[in-house]
Amino acid sequence: MTRFASSAADLRSSEIRDLMSLATAPGMISFAGGMPGNELFPLEAIDRICYTLTEKEKQTALQYAPTAGLPQLLESLSDYLERKGLPVGSNRLMITTGSLQAIHILAKAFIDPGDPVLVEAPSFIGALSAFRAFRANLIPVPLKGDGMDTEALKKRLDTTLPSPKFLYYTPNFHNPAGIIYSRKVKQEMMLLLKGRDIPVIEDDAYNELYFCEEDLPEMQLMKTVDPEGIDVCYTGSFSKILGPGLRLGWMLAPEEIYGKCELIKQSIDACSPGISQVIADKFIRQGDVYDYTAAIRKEYKKRGEAMTAALEASLPSCVTFGKPRGGFYIWLRLPEGSDSTAVLKRAIEKGTVFVTGKTFDPDGVKNDFLRVSFCNTDVEAIRRGVPLIAEAIREVCCP
Amino acid sequence: MTRFASSAADLRSSEIRDLMSLATAPGMISFAGGMPGNELFPLEAIDRICYTLTEKEKQTALQYAPTAGLPQLLESLSDYLERKGLPVGSNRLMITTGSLQAIHILAKAFIDPGDPVLVEAPSFIGALSAFRAFRANLIPVPLKGDGMDTEALKKRLDTTLPSPKFLYYTPNFHNPAGIIYSRKVKQEMMLLLKGRDIPVIEDDAYNELYFCEEDLPEMQLMKTVDPEGIDVCYTGSFSKILGPGLRLGWMLAPEEIYGKCELIKQSIDACSPGISQVIADKFIRQGDVYDYTAAIRKEYKKRGEAMTAALEASLPSCVTFGKPRGGFYIWLRLPEGSDSTAVLKRAIEKGTVFVTGKTFDPDGVKNDFLRVSFCNTDVEAIRRGVPLIAEAIREVCCP
Repeated sequence: MTRFASSAADLRSSEIRDLMSLATAPGMISFAGGMPGNELFPLEAIDRICYTLTEKEKQTALQYAPTAGLPQLLESLSDYLERKGLPVGSNRLMITTGSLQAIHILAKAFIDPGDPVLVEAPSFIGALSAFRAFRANLIPVPLKGDGMDTEALKKRLDTTLPSPKFLYYTPNFHNPAGIIYSRKVKQEMMLLLKGRDIPVIEDDAYNELYFCEEDLPEMQLMKTVDPEGIDVCYTGSFSKILGPGLRLGWMLAPEEIYGKCELIKQSIDACSPGISQVIADKFIRQGDVYDYTAAIRKEYKKRGEAMTAALEASLPSCVTFGKPRGGFYIWLRLPEGSDSTAVLKRAIEKGTVFVTGKTFDPDGVKNDFLRVSFCNTDVEAIRRGVPLIAEAIREVCCP
Repeated sequence: MTRFASSAADLRSSEIRDLMSLATAPGMISFAGGMPGNELFPLEAIDRICYTLTEKEKQTALQYAPTAGLPQLLESLSDYLERKGLPVGSNRLMITTGSLQAIHILAKAFIDPGDPVLVEAPSFIGALSAFRAFRANLIPVPLKGDGMDTEALKKRLDTTLPSPKFLYYTPNFHNPAGIIYSRKVKQEMMLLLKGRDIPVIEDDAYNELYFCEEDLPEMQLMKTVDPEGIDVCYTGSFSKILGPGLRLGWMLAPEEIYGKCELIKQSIDACSPGISQVIADKFIRQGDVYDYTAAIRKEYKKRGEAMTAALEASLPSCVTFGKPRGGFYIWLRLPEGSDSTAVLKRAIEKGTVFVTGKTFDPDGVKNDFLRVSFCNTDVEAIRRGVPLIAEAIREVCCP
């Protein structure tokens, strides 16, 4: 017998956590984290914003904000999202304390213990942890190179009982798989979901981090289509386009779902940080966001290409991966049945870390993949560190 | 049938919300809100802090923080709490996104649907809403002038089955009741709780806002005693000693409870805002917090006294209240059976708002009280607004 709630009783610290402490050990080259590089933050733009705030704006920054968000940020963010073709007029926008909070709130709105929810395999660990916190029954749908395996999705939809409470997916620069969903796969998904009353959570945290403009048509969002009969809840983040330390994200959702979510948000933290909202509003309104995202796209592309080249030069041929078209990650497929935890241990001895495949597996089992991030390491460190990972793989998987 | 989770299905927008929109109507004198006055924020100190941040500190402000909080803030806050006699060495400290989040996390850690939890009647609406969000069975314990009615508490403890998951109470400058718990009541509570394995959430958001130093001995916290056999989880907030817009609070809890809470926090928003944590650390470390709290204590005392005088001069004799010894609120007892909602409607016609008694009642029923705040209105507005409330009471309750 435990005195904790049933959803809390079986919470255990994850491997990720121990990894993270290793990742910051002195001299360690870390490809583990999913955070932007410290040296890439737009410090000058933020300084300029802070130095020119009026007294009234500073007071707003320090005061409680409305639960939904500061009106000025809701306005500027609506404009920003509308330029991407998102239907802000026919949906409601809420500012959340990071986009993970948006996902957590949606999980709380929909999940009773044991309820099935459809997730990708592999999937974003933060979302899995939010769904597990409500004791969801995670139903994995395997990923292919262009998105969800729609054959498998169809099977899950036809056989999962009771009906799944929602489908969670990340269309662009998938964490960890690195892929973009093709338009074709998204269209097939919408056809399959039509008329089933299963909402979609479309988590688009990496939207701005594309490397090639030619990919933009492929990146068209389900939410821009906003298909009749499917409630799409679109979530996004300032973490990748400004800084995670602001803890700001958003949710764009149909009225009825939004209403529940706002009441849940109220009971979690009353409102998102005003200080961050004042800065984020200026950052969009004064156009900094466009210059900044253009600059970091270039930098992440350079890093992604350096990592691709280093991997191609050093990996054994039994390891395959897709070249990144944006985002932060490359997902390495090891020989079937390999144990990436054993590879990790060897890699740590050599002075480098990454994240094991099973971390992202909804079942916590499948471990013959690993994720390397290129977001928080400069080109020079990438060139030094990648061969160490390749060595570790070679020693463990193809001795 | 609803598609929402059972805890979300019956969430409804509250009266508070409609009130808040009224409270900001032009010309309205609002005694409704529980926020500090905009004109009282320490803008100069924060400007000075921001202008002198190093590049590295700015990067830290924009980056993800550890889930538990930035190490430097944990250090300076530990020192700050230790000066109050709090047992930081034998407990774990976590930085939360406002103290409401600390309460929400504890609710999630302990409450399964239907679980009884002991709360004060009246009680802080934010905590009630967090507990309701987990479908707790709220067991009210009436308040007297010096704290919980311990006779009633004993009865609740002896008769509530299953055993309550925790007791939630606010020792100092109660919201809404305005009282301080006496040492005697706290000692009786500890005796009653001993050996029952019922944790206590001690919510001390208003700790610094005392009007008289002589009250300090009476304000001794349960957590400073940290009695053997009772797990006290102490929560506090930067909202009253710096600014709510930072969204920063904390929880000081025994190791085992802390462990669950950190994992829950991870699934909610990963970490608290770095930008706020960097500022809050400097604000404590450079000693600003001591000067600032000394200054606002004086100002709130002035406002509290102005409101007391205005109430004494204008209220009909059938209305009673305790003089505030700190905090933000005065709690008016109307003639038994009065309807403060009817009073509110009349008051709004006259150009002033407050919060009705039933808002704070765990059962949402008892309405012959009302809460007036003196935190966000200057002395002049207090003198103009209070007689309007007195008039409304007179017209509705003693015509």
